[in-house]
Amino acid sequence: MTVADPAHNVEPLAIICGGGGIPGAVADAVARRGRRPVMFAIKGWADAAVVERYTHHWIAIGQAGRFFRLARAENCRDMLFIGAVLRPPITQLRLDWQTIRLMPQVLRSYRGGDDRLLAGVASVAESGGLRVVGLHEVAPEVFIPEGALGRHVPGDRDKTDIARALTVIAALGPFDVGQAAIVADNNVLAVEAAEGTDNMLARIADLRRQGRVTAPPGTGVLVKAPKPGQDRRFDLPTIGPRTIANAVRAGLAGVAVTAGSTIIAEPAAVAAAADREKIFVIGVPEVTAR
Amino acid sequence: MTVADPAHNVEPLAIICGGGGIPGAVADAVARRGRRPVMFAIKGWADAAVVERYTHHWIAIGQAGRFFRLARAENCRDMLFIGAVLRPPITQLRLDWQTIRLMPQVLRSYRGGDDRLLAGVASVAESGGLRVVGLHEVAPEVFIPEGALGRHVPGDRDKTDIARALTVIAALGPFDVGQAAIVADNNVLAVEAAEGTDNMLARIADLRRQGRVTAPPGTGVLVKAPKPGQDRRFDLPTIGPRTIANAVRAGLAGVAVTAGSTIIAEPAAVAAAADREKIFVIGVPEVTAR
Repeated sequence: MTVADPAHNVEPLAIICGGGGIPGAVADAVARRGRRPVMFAIKGWADAAVVERYTHHWIAIGQAGRFFRLARAENCRDMLFIGAVLRPPITQLRLDWQTIRLMPQVLRSYRGGDDRLLAGVASVAESGGLRVVGLHEVAPEVFIPEGALGRHVPGDRDKTDIARALTVIAALGPFDVGQAAIVADNNVLAVEAAEGTDNMLARIADLRRQGRVTAPPGTGVLVKAPKPGQDRRFDLPTIGPRTIANAVRAGLAGVAVTAGSTIIAEPAAVAAAADREKIFVIGVPEVTAR
Repeated sequence: MTVADPAHNVEPLAIICGGGGIPGAVADAVARRGRRPVMFAIKGWADAAVVERYTHHWIAIGQAGRFFRLARAENCRDMLFIGAVLRPPITQLRLDWQTIRLMPQVLRSYRGGDDRLLAGVASVAESGGLRVVGLHEVAPEVFIPEGALGRHVPGDRDKTDIARALTVIAALGPFDVGQAAIVADNNVLAVEAAEGTDNMLARIADLRRQGRVTAPPGTGVLVKAPKPGQDRRFDLPTIGPRTIANAVRAGLAGVAVTAGSTIIAEPAAVAAAADREKIFVIGVPEVTAR
């Protein structure tokens, strides 16, 4: 398939935009491939400067009916979820009529972890006649490729730490919990759950300051990977320049993420930061069957 | 065996005392059973007020030779480790000659998680002619029994959360990582690694304040359990009045810990605090084979 091949200049793509800069990078990639993005910016999460570069509509969580009407008016048949959105307290949602009709489905999604929530969102979307597509189908170039991104590469100790972290994340797959762990000199220092990667890195920086992490500075790896069995249409692991800055503060040797399934925001800025701080950033193969 | 049976009034027990009040409670239990405790208080960790109630010596980590000499002079043949000690930076230890001879063993213990460190400590101790005993052998009454400690008991949702947390901890067993997790309404909110239980609970209190944990206040359970396959002579999970205070700040419904393997400090104070705060504290059976 050629990029911008007119044969692929199909109907526009509805992009449901959460927070951060990734929705913009994704829209750019989609547009470069000859497909028109229509941004559905989630109120309270999406960044106006990011979504306003394309056709856009502001929508609220709980307003499924309004979203379906707008998507139909824009001739969208496919939709993509991208960017950070935290599970809102259900009592704070203002629900429209169509959402209320779908409430049994939504409520079921609220029990259980993120995977169930997102599967619920997808089934709601599909009940509105839209197809939920994955990022790998429409803009695979936003994923990190295999190999080192900058000048630095992991050493033997780092490779052992990376392998251990990947197996920790894989072991937690059935519990729909973290996508990230920090391992230093074969010790599992942190496992991510509700706090998110930045908080987890800040914790390791604190524990190092307090002398409670005794692996020397420049030891340890942040590893991110999608949960095994995760629905790849949602909530993929993401890194960007801030991840590198936080990894440096946590005194790590580097960052390893799964190639082809971790989104990288601003790859050039990430590589430059990694080189400047003398840490590695690498795309690694996913752990397959356990 | 009768408590204080003179036949069991054997040689004194060497108790290596880390931080906190538990070493004192253990020494009391040992003494009630008719055995004389000799406290070996670790400098920088043990609490003077706790250890000074019995025969005691101050020792530094890395001074294995001095410890062995003192233990022999006191006629101890068994030793017990109890209380909090964090892995010290190896470069900050002042090593005596006997410790230096044992360095290959010690260094091997420093790679890998706590279990390997502790197994290394045990093998060093045994090379000095002492036997490392477990708390269950000398003072089983310091463990929490099965059942609710105060007036409150878990409801059905709490029971589901407890079961999920126990399986998360079990799944992490091979990685020598946490002994604790927090699950609320079937979502795994936190998994403990290097940060310790108090830090993990503080994190959930923070995430709740920030609206990033949306389970309503009074939902969620802190669960502590020894790692599967853990050497029961070391580093058993512990709760005390501070655990209850932190669980309340984190907005949890209660605390569940494994009966017969979790140490409870000041059980009467824990039960009183739980009743006052209307949360449950319960000893539950361990998860057996997966």
